[in-house]
Amino acid sequence: MCIGDNVNSAHGGATLALHARPSLKTNGVHTRLPTKTNVQKMVHHMGAAAEGVVYLRGNLLYMRDDTDVELPFRQESHFFYLTGVNEPGFHFLYDFNTSRSFLFVPAVDTDSIVWIGQPDNPDELLAKYDVDEVHYESLLPSVLKSLRPTTIHALDITDTSVLLPAISSLTPSPQVEISFLRPALAESRLTKQDWEIDLLRRINRISSDAHERLMREVRPGQNEYEMHALFVYECARRGAFFQCYAPIVASGKAAATLHYNRNNRWLEAENPYQMLLVDAGAELMCYGSDITRTYPTGGKFSAEARVIYNIVEEMQDACYAIIKPGVEWERVHRTAELVGLRGLVKAGILVGNEEELLKSHVTAAFFPHGLGHLLGLDVHDVGGYPAGVERIQEPGIRYLRMRRPLQKGMVVTVEPGIYFCDFMIDPVLSDPDTARFINREVLARYRSVGGVRIEDDVLITEDGFENLTTVPRSIEEIERIMAQGKE
Amino acid sequence: MCIGDNVNSAHGGATLALHARPSLKTNGVHTRLPTKTNVQKMVHHMGAAAEGVVYLRGNLLYMRDDTDVELPFRQESHFFYLTGVNEPGFHFLYDFNTSRSFLFVPAVDTDSIVWIGQPDNPDELLAKYDVDEVHYESLLPSVLKSLRPTTIHALDITDTSVLLPAISSLTPSPQVEISFLRPALAESRLTKQDWEIDLLRRINRISSDAHERLMREVRPGQNEYEMHALFVYECARRGAFFQCYAPIVASGKAAATLHYNRNNRWLEAENPYQMLLVDAGAELMCYGSDITRTYPTGGKFSAEARVIYNIVEEMQDACYAIIKPGVEWERVHRTAELVGLRGLVKAGILVGNEEELLKSHVTAAFFPHGLGHLLGLDVHDVGGYPAGVERIQEPGIRYLRMRRPLQKGMVVTVEPGIYFCDFMIDPVLSDPDTARFINREVLARYRSVGGVRIEDDVLITEDGFENLTTVPRSIEEIERIMAQGKE
Repeated sequence: MCIGDNVNSAHGGATLALHARPSLKTNGVHTRLPTKTNVQKMVHHMGAAAEGVVYLRGNLLYMRDDTDVELPFRQESHFFYLTGVNEPGFHFLYDFNTSRSFLFVPAVDTDSIVWIGQPDNPDELLAKYDVDEVHYESLLPSVLKSLRPTTIHALDITDTSVLLPAISSLTPSPQVEISFLRPALAESRLTKQDWEIDLLRRINRISSDAHERLMREVRPGQNEYEMHALFVYECARRGAFFQCYAPIVASGKAAATLHYNRNNRWLEAENPYQMLLVDAGAELMCYGSDITRTYPTGGKFSAEARVIYNIVEEMQDACYAIIKPGVEWERVHRTAELVGLRGLVKAGILVGNEEELLKSHVTAAFFPHGLGHLLGLDVHDVGGYPAGVERIQEPGIRYLRMRRPLQKGMVVTVEPGIYFCDFMIDPVLSDPDTARFINREVLARYRSVGGVRIEDDVLITEDGFENLTTVPRSIEEIERIMAQGKE
Repeated sequence: MCIGDNVNSAHGGATLALHARPSLKTNGVHTRLPTKTNVQKMVHHMGAAAEGVVYLRGNLLYMRDDTDVELPFRQESHFFYLTGVNEPGFHFLYDFNTSRSFLFVPAVDTDSIVWIGQPDNPDELLAKYDVDEVHYESLLPSVLKSLRPTTIHALDITDTSVLLPAISSLTPSPQVEISFLRPALAESRLTKQDWEIDLLRRINRISSDAHERLMREVRPGQNEYEMHALFVYECARRGAFFQCYAPIVASGKAAATLHYNRNNRWLEAENPYQMLLVDAGAELMCYGSDITRTYPTGGKFSAEARVIYNIVEEMQDACYAIIKPGVEWERVHRTAELVGLRGLVKAGILVGNEEELLKSHVTAAFFPHGLGHLLGLDVHDVGGYPAGVERIQEPGIRYLRMRRPLQKGMVVTVEPGIYFCDFMIDPVLSDPDTARFINREVLARYRSVGGVRIEDDVLITEDGFENLTTVPRSIEEIERIMAQGKE
């Protein structure tokens, strides 16, 4: 790495680069996203509050601690939603009165050009982004003043300090209002437009292919982090440099830790039946994916793993049978839970009357999380709980990240799972009220399965859904792919 | 990804996880680093100021914007230096009076264990880290009070707010002092101990091997980001998940942008002579590497590239000929510059009297950066400018990141380069005072080379240096490796 881009930082002191810096573009080509269609949705959802202007401040480029090591840049999702800009240092302004949108870009000082290259000028940026005007940052106060807004709508996280001189010079002074924009953006982002769906489909394909590559390459005796590294690489080499969340690569019992991401255990060299759970998805132009597959490192499911895997498949299929617009999401969750309960009874792990079992919530010890969530610019996308809707305070379902009816254009994850987590199950066994529902001998046979989760991303359509995830799910297909990988 | 680890964040609001979260360990195994030897160096360099305690707050785990997406965790370097802890949420205390060191770890709430797993307890942490005591965070105030310090030494970046209740309850109240610790740590980190050198050697090997893999795999017509992704993967699959800095993968003219990291240009499909500059290095247990190689994408150097490459090799060799303890670093820089100047004269790009050329600083248009810098826990490691030493205000050398004599145990980069950057050269051509030193016709032949940099990491030894970088440098070896890659 070269020396000395910042003469003043030799003795430390937190550095914040305020200049624009081009980010890694996806697939080598910048695609101009039609983000004005998103702005229109925002305007619609602002309703009667739609007056004055919207102001958003894009993310800045930060350095690690008091070093000059750049941290990876990723735009704040709301800002990206309205602008398509994934470079640091921008401001966005939208005027409700004239329906015009503005980007403001920091000027780069001449001294920096030898280090970071020639930045795009405003004309080039206007061709790149779907806005009406692009200006240098220094013009922001005068443009704001010329619009004479009564209200400046922002997010609670928006730093509006740069606007203060302009605000105080206007009579009457505009109010900064943070109550309306966030819910309007959440409602806008709740359903996806065709071009967003196209991105979600493309990144699902890339992540699906990466999952398939792992199935082919995994071997007993490897380390989880080798699989983690391979997943990230398979996505990055196709232009998807960012993961939507920290990948989970969990072997054996680690799969029962739901957000395990140590990813540093050795796969058992002598146990080809050990299960590996991989929950990972990359993002493309900030649109994400979120996929889980679970399979035996040696390529053949054990009898026990097969039983559990089949239960989880049945849970997912039962959801697919009812998913369509209008269906309440908690109904889908409860459907998966019921099918899971019946599967565990059939396997002999749970015993007793179905109604009593349901009332005891003992299934939540094996399926302790919600069925799925909205997906989009964030892995847990916004809009799951409209104002006034509360969590259901029961085991498992209290973690459900959405309570509202499905709508066409939503993208949701469907991710049932069955886990053998001592930390969850042991309290059930030690409580006489619930211990009677569990057959300890049968349970003991299944503990080594660890955990199975199957997770796909589905688009809600007019009369049902479309599965965007393309990596195979069935035991037969997985065993076939894994056998090919060993040829 | 699973649903609902944080019930309260459904409606947003910046989230800061204050609990400890195990990070990815290198090579699957945690190595206990003998960091007490670093503490001893710090004590020594504190000199007469060594009284009271040292307090440092380790980095926390942050979420991206107001989402629940975890950002990658990397410890602040000074904290890592004294503790070896690369997990979030820790505090460190060292008592000068008793020479005892303490770690404080946040307790994990029971509800989180199903999501993140069972954390290490204090006894396990005591076995893992080279300190005298480990306690839960809640004990920090009482331990601090029991030590009755007169002074609490911290960094200017240290958040000491958690100490305030303890401070105010002590009579007399200890002073928080930020003047002494930072320079003492910089002097401590300036030279490396054997175990640190061992880590620097290991990560240099991993990064060197990754560079070699790129040489084998690169093809005209690929995209720079494919090479970027491959480099990161080659390091990560061996446990080095963090890059020491943003990789620079620059083809053709992009190589003349010194910190280019768009990494999204297509390599020219029809031009096997196009040069690719790769400046990249990973880190292992926070200790870094920083390596640059430049080579033709088709595997054979053009006549022009060969000339420039040889000049840069000669610059590096001239440095190697004088590098040893006691030599001023700026002398090494000026040596490289002089050899570069002579090479450019010999190539016919520069013309005129050597003394006049030197005085004109015209070489800085082709070699615009400093020769190299200290390397360790940061890519531009601390300690380059002791108090009172100023930059030399001349072109090129003003970017030099170190001005002090070489010492045994320093690790420095040696990274000469020759670039054809229009932005740097055109002003020289348009100024009649300097234009006369340049032969435009000869220069025109070389512009397409873009830029060549060669960068190795060297350890200063008793009587010279040891090159830690193992990837071959010579044209013959590079062409041989690249030919093997095409077999």
